[in-house]
Amino acid sequence: MTSTSGLIERKRNGGRLSSEEIQLLIGGYMSDDVPEYQIAAWLMAVYFRGLMLDETLALTDALIASGDRLDLSSLGRRVVDKHSTGGVGDKVSLVLGPLVAACGAVFGKMSGRSLGHTGGTVDKMESIAGFKTEIEPDHFLSQLRRVGVCIAGQTVNLAPADGCLYALRDVTATIESNALTAASIMSKKIAAGAQAVVLDVKVGRGAFFKNRGQAHGVAHLMREIGAARGLKVAPVMTAMDQPLGCAVGNSLEVLEAVKTLRGKGPADLVTVVAELAANLLSLSDLGWDINKARLEARRMIDGGLALEKFREWIEAQGGDASFIDNPQALEAAPVRLPVRAGSTGYVGDLDALAIGEAALALGAGRLRREDKIDHAAGIILGAKIGDFVEQDQELAVIHCRSRAAGEAVAARVQSAFAVDGRQAAPRPLILE
Amino acid sequence: MTSTSGLIERKRNGGRLSSEEIQLLIGGYMSDDVPEYQIAAWLMAVYFRGLMLDETLALTDALIASGDRLDLSSLGRRVVDKHSTGGVGDKVSLVLGPLVAACGAVFGKMSGRSLGHTGGTVDKMESIAGFKTEIEPDHFLSQLRRVGVCIAGQTVNLAPADGCLYALRDVTATIESNALTAASIMSKKIAAGAQAVVLDVKVGRGAFFKNRGQAHGVAHLMREIGAARGLKVAPVMTAMDQPLGCAVGNSLEVLEAVKTLRGKGPADLVTVVAELAANLLSLSDLGWDINKARLEARRMIDGGLALEKFREWIEAQGGDASFIDNPQALEAAPVRLPVRAGSTGYVGDLDALAIGEAALALGAGRLRREDKIDHAAGIILGAKIGDFVEQDQELAVIHCRSRAAGEAVAARVQSAFAVDGRQAAPRPLILE
Repeated sequence: MTSTSGLIERKRNGGRLSSEEIQLLIGGYMSDDVPEYQIAAWLMAVYFRGLMLDETLALTDALIASGDRLDLSSLGRRVVDKHSTGGVGDKVSLVLGPLVAACGAVFGKMSGRSLGHTGGTVDKMESIAGFKTEIEPDHFLSQLRRVGVCIAGQTVNLAPADGCLYALRDVTATIESNALTAASIMSKKIAAGAQAVVLDVKVGRGAFFKNRGQAHGVAHLMREIGAARGLKVAPVMTAMDQPLGCAVGNSLEVLEAVKTLRGKGPADLVTVVAELAANLLSLSDLGWDINKARLEARRMIDGGLALEKFREWIEAQGGDASFIDNPQALEAAPVRLPVRAGSTGYVGDLDALAIGEAALALGAGRLRREDKIDHAAGIILGAKIGDFVEQDQELAVIHCRSRAAGEAVAARVQSAFAVDGRQAAPRPLILE
Repeated sequence: MTSTSGLIERKRNGGRLSSEEIQLLIGGYMSDDVPEYQIAAWLMAVYFRGLMLDETLALTDALIASGDRLDLSSLGRRVVDKHSTGGVGDKVSLVLGPLVAACGAVFGKMSGRSLGHTGGTVDKMESIAGFKTEIEPDHFLSQLRRVGVCIAGQTVNLAPADGCLYALRDVTATIESNALTAASIMSKKIAAGAQAVVLDVKVGRGAFFKNRGQAHGVAHLMREIGAARGLKVAPVMTAMDQPLGCAVGNSLEVLEAVKTLRGKGPADLVTVVAELAANLLSLSDLGWDINKARLEARRMIDGGLALEKFREWIEAQGGDASFIDNPQALEAAPVRLPVRAGSTGYVGDLDALAIGEAALALGAGRLRREDKIDHAAGIILGAKIGDFVEQDQELAVIHCRSRAAGEAVAARVQSAFAVDGRQAAPRPLILE
């Protein structure tokens, strides 16, 4: 049998590892039989040499095998899921879940928490008083059967090796690997029992993928992994140069989701939701083509049924839904600090990463897993790319605990806006 | 300040780290502030991207700074040293030390122990009853002053980070890096206080370097490091396809060294000793050119003065020198097992690695640092490449503890010899 260092050497030399060998590495890592420094060296070799498709599949399988795997087949329905690679102001799942459920599809999602400058759906949902995200598999299934939509945090041990491997990649400069990224995302989805998933692959400054080429490679790989493991995968690439919508921060985003379900959402968010909903519905077991899916989704918003499904869903998970009619029912930040334009002109750029980091600094996100979230903190953008602003006009309003906290990030928020003399050409939002 | 993962990322992207940054990595590794998995990832990035000369120097300095550094300047003489990258049957230092000391040069060496299929000088010397290798720096200096030659094991803590890093490289498939190898060797030499060193860079199947290109790169780098740190370095590349000389195993090699000092050594060993002695002497403070050095070395062997210096040296380190006149005074193996030629012809090949591994299996070396050595075990080669042998002629004699131990390796020893119909062209021994 080849030693672990022999396996590292083979990958280093551009060779290929068998499924058994990859299982030995990942299984050994989890059982402490393979030391972390060997995994780190292997990861760096993978960074340089890549993985073949069969190795990527083997890695996906090994990550899944490290924990529990949900079986949703007893529902008798195809459960659809949506996964975003993470962005700033990305409250799409909050709108999408009830929207496709209103259409009759079954939307089930195990979601993560915020980390770094990107938010997590579970944290956003927890802005709502009483909303429970710790849901056991039985309850998850019964809610899907009853309501058609459930978004839960992870109560079972889904692909724990993925969490360990990701943390190790984070500190060894091996995050940027298409194969490792695709295996990581797909292992979680497959372990969570999803049967069809729309991947919102965000591309741009505020996203994990800084350019389209990289995103394209990972999207392609995820589709291949899905095809090999019986999971329908539709990747959609969307831009993440500026934040999505106008609200950044947990309860602020929940309110924007409600607005969007009322048909009054910001244009970019509405566009992304419509595109993803159409893809999700056409992957579902409703048998709709993409045009029918687009029309039905539109109808559910216009007719108020999507918002009603949202209310039903919030209440099914124990949440106090009164904020839907009375936004004051959500906790609000005590201080609001406007950020004003320094000059007159068009917003030529709005840096999603800078806004995400400012929100993080306000307490809307967490830098370490153990950090506490301030659900009320965040930023409301008053202008976006292409908008004309006068000098001293409000560019944004910072929602914060204290004046000092707001002032600490005000300059960063202001300089996230580039105000130019001329109007920039509009940028596409749906990239592929 | 850049985080450790930022440093790894920069190297991964082909960038360069400052001296302070490399010191932070190595210092942090030794103080446990930088985890081993980050060092492992950095090593693999270095494997792919290499190090610039200034980074290699910084690494050498950081390895030296991790421990003590000997200062031999109080001698008022230039101390010369010889380092071999390790081979099979390599007893050169045992001959070279007394030979150049007899010429009037000062030869001081901190030597290592056997590991794997290659032997270590300290283990060979310990075949001699009473010979002490644990020598404190004061004693080392006074013996150099008095006798002109001292070979000691390490009593002080020379470049401990090098040992840790090497062990980590060994299990992460990052041994094969010119920069890491050059920094490793040179850090030990500089820490040990050598002022001039001849590097015997062995190339071939039985050596660390399997090909000349690799050896050439490392030799060049070591010379550059030496130049930058005030150490004269003369690399000499010698072949290590077949073992050097005829004896492989600790006390067997000591006896062959005596034979060589008497002017009766095997031709290949005599050639390598002559070449290295000439280089060492011309690096020394005697002011000789290479031709004068060659002549004087020859004269010291012919006149018996080299052997007398050997005796003086053995006694200075507490050894019983009676074996010089009476070989039976060294411990001998109880069993001798001949290995015979299966056919008649020329020895076309003799695999140094196979012979080294057979000797290791007999107990002449150690696989793990904690293994005990059997000083008497080993192999005496009766034929070398180019020799004509008759069927059933003795190819080698195995010196072993028991018949079973010898028989366990006999087939391996026999198949190390390739006996062909025609005589092969002679191969050069001194490559560069």
